[in-house]
Amino acid sequence: MPIEDLTDQLTVAHLSEAELLARIFPRLNHGPNILLGPGDDAALVAAPDGRTLISIDTQTQDQDFRLRWNNGYRTSGFDVGWKAAAQNLSDINAMGGRATSLVVSLTMPPATPVQWVEDFADGLTAGIVGLGAPDCSVAGGDLGRGREIAVTVAVVGTLNGRPPVLRSGAKPGDVVAVAGTLGRAAAGLALLESDIPLADLDPELRALVNSQCRPEPPLAAGPLAAGSGATAMMDVSDGLLRDGGRLAAAGNVVVDLDPAALQRFAGPLVPAAMRLATDAMPWVLGGGEDHGLLATFPAGIQLPEGFTAIGSVQAVAQSEGSGVRIAGQAADTVGWDHFAD
Amino acid sequence: MPIEDLTDQLTVAHLSEAELLARIFPRLNHGPNILLGPGDDAALVAAPDGRTLISIDTQTQDQDFRLRWNNGYRTSGFDVGWKAAAQNLSDINAMGGRATSLVVSLTMPPATPVQWVEDFADGLTAGIVGLGAPDCSVAGGDLGRGREIAVTVAVVGTLNGRPPVLRSGAKPGDVVAVAGTLGRAAAGLALLESDIPLADLDPELRALVNSQCRPEPPLAAGPLAAGSGATAMMDVSDGLLRDGGRLAAAGNVVVDLDPAALQRFAGPLVPAAMRLATDAMPWVLGGGEDHGLLATFPAGIQLPEGFTAIGSVQAVAQSEGSGVRIAGQAADTVGWDHFAD
Repeated sequence: MPIEDLTDQLTVAHLSEAELLARIFPRLNHGPNILLGPGDDAALVAAPDGRTLISIDTQTQDQDFRLRWNNGYRTSGFDVGWKAAAQNLSDINAMGGRATSLVVSLTMPPATPVQWVEDFADGLTAGIVGLGAPDCSVAGGDLGRGREIAVTVAVVGTLNGRPPVLRSGAKPGDVVAVAGTLGRAAAGLALLESDIPLADLDPELRALVNSQCRPEPPLAAGPLAAGSGATAMMDVSDGLLRDGGRLAAAGNVVVDLDPAALQRFAGPLVPAAMRLATDAMPWVLGGGEDHGLLATFPAGIQLPEGFTAIGSVQAVAQSEGSGVRIAGQAADTVGWDHFAD
Repeated sequence: MPIEDLTDQLTVAHLSEAELLARIFPRLNHGPNILLGPGDDAALVAAPDGRTLISIDTQTQDQDFRLRWNNGYRTSGFDVGWKAAAQNLSDINAMGGRATSLVVSLTMPPATPVQWVEDFADGLTAGIVGLGAPDCSVAGGDLGRGREIAVTVAVVGTLNGRPPVLRSGAKPGDVVAVAGTLGRAAAGLALLESDIPLADLDPELRALVNSQCRPEPPLAAGPLAAGSGATAMMDVSDGLLRDGGRLAAAGNVVVDLDPAALQRFAGPLVPAAMRLATDAMPWVLGGGEDHGLLATFPAGIQLPEGFTAIGSVQAVAQSEGSGVRIAGQAADTVGWDHFAD
């Protein structure tokens, strides 16, 4: 529920921390990996192969989401909770692992409605379960005040005895492939920032907005890729060109993308691009937040289910460094960087 | 270095995320537990006994610290980094464990000086090493923009095969003891919020300010207590009465405190209290952020090094619930709650 409609409702300032926690706890996901859950100074989580993956990600109001977008859409607590689950589970997926547990810190203004916090907890749980990680428990958290809403999740996971799939392992001759989707969340972001009210969008375009607000990273694909011999992997959170450039730099290789393959991702976005009088391809090349997987595989093997080939890995030429090319041509980097433009 | 003096200096807005990370990485602590460090989507940390402790804590500007206090003291990045280490390592300590690794998310305005961020990284490392956890590596992190500085750390740790020491295990007849200190950080906070410039404080009072800005939780005491048969334990982060009340509630017991023992913590704070025309005992009873340990031990055993007895555990009387008493009298709860007053 949007915050501004609820200022006469119960807010977090009306409750003690214990009372607020009592409303949150029953809404959180409980899985089998938790040896000791919320209530003590730390939780205890199973790490069956003697190692644990760990990652952390923050979403901040007006930076990673707006409570009210230009087109009138209001970000719900459910959206923010879902997205927190999605982006963190994706980091474990990108290593070839499965999330076992997460802890969450929620900072918010005292005027935040309790209902928003409950929606957040519901969205976090719905994301975890809906994205296919029902074994991932919410093990604990932290509540605090701030001038803006900020959500930080740290997630731990298991590789089930396998080595992690690194960004750095791509070899010349490998196939470049993606799982999940590219550009949908960016198209949704453009629609949210447009003047077109949500009600005026047909279902296909509304679905793009949903891809921005509740992304669906392909959580089955990471472990599958790891088991199929992926040589390198990462999630596309800052855009294909930028993240592809990171993968290329880590392996000191060139990632050469096939325009025809990229066009297959751009095609479904053309109606949104036409509605906004813009082009679809920049969304495919520069859009993050879909949290698709970018992976490389040895040539000749059958790609695991869910992956589509989009190019090949090539050796760095004498006169050039690592980087992303499109059909052999240097691609200008577009995508997300938190501080530089 | 304080932010407001540096607005004509290099800020994070001048650097790309990669450039900023390149300045941070060399300053971070690297220990033996890291199987895969920063640079991929998640880090991989050893969990030698097949389990991992995990906790998360956030500090937000103007809520958990002020960049410039009323007395003129300016919080440095080093202070914030040290405190982030202290409060998170304390959560692992409170379970009887040792921290193996942490991940950190730093949200900040674009005008934040790069020097402040470097100081933060230095303070984080200095805290980890200086507090006695040199094996705890900084495994990764996240950088983002926001209107205010917010630091979230998630820490993982190991129990080395031991069971965790819970809040709920106190039994009637147990001795109540603390390790570390009580009230010093609160006295320091009162000095920071006073009109007395730092330069006018004698070294004893300046040391109290330091206890607030760079607390020193007793990290050896947690594992020692666990090995010595502590029945319950937690860290005192929100004040002795409030946290003692939580321990009492978790075990459904009464924690009865000995005023003479508490007086030994209040005594050294009397000069500060006199300077501020107030009383020292409320700092001892209500002050958090020293991150001392509150633990209970079976009667008759020798308390482990660093612990001081401050009371006893008693059964709940018929007419009353669990809670904290001082010499048998009900104690009004004072201390820190994030949302209620």
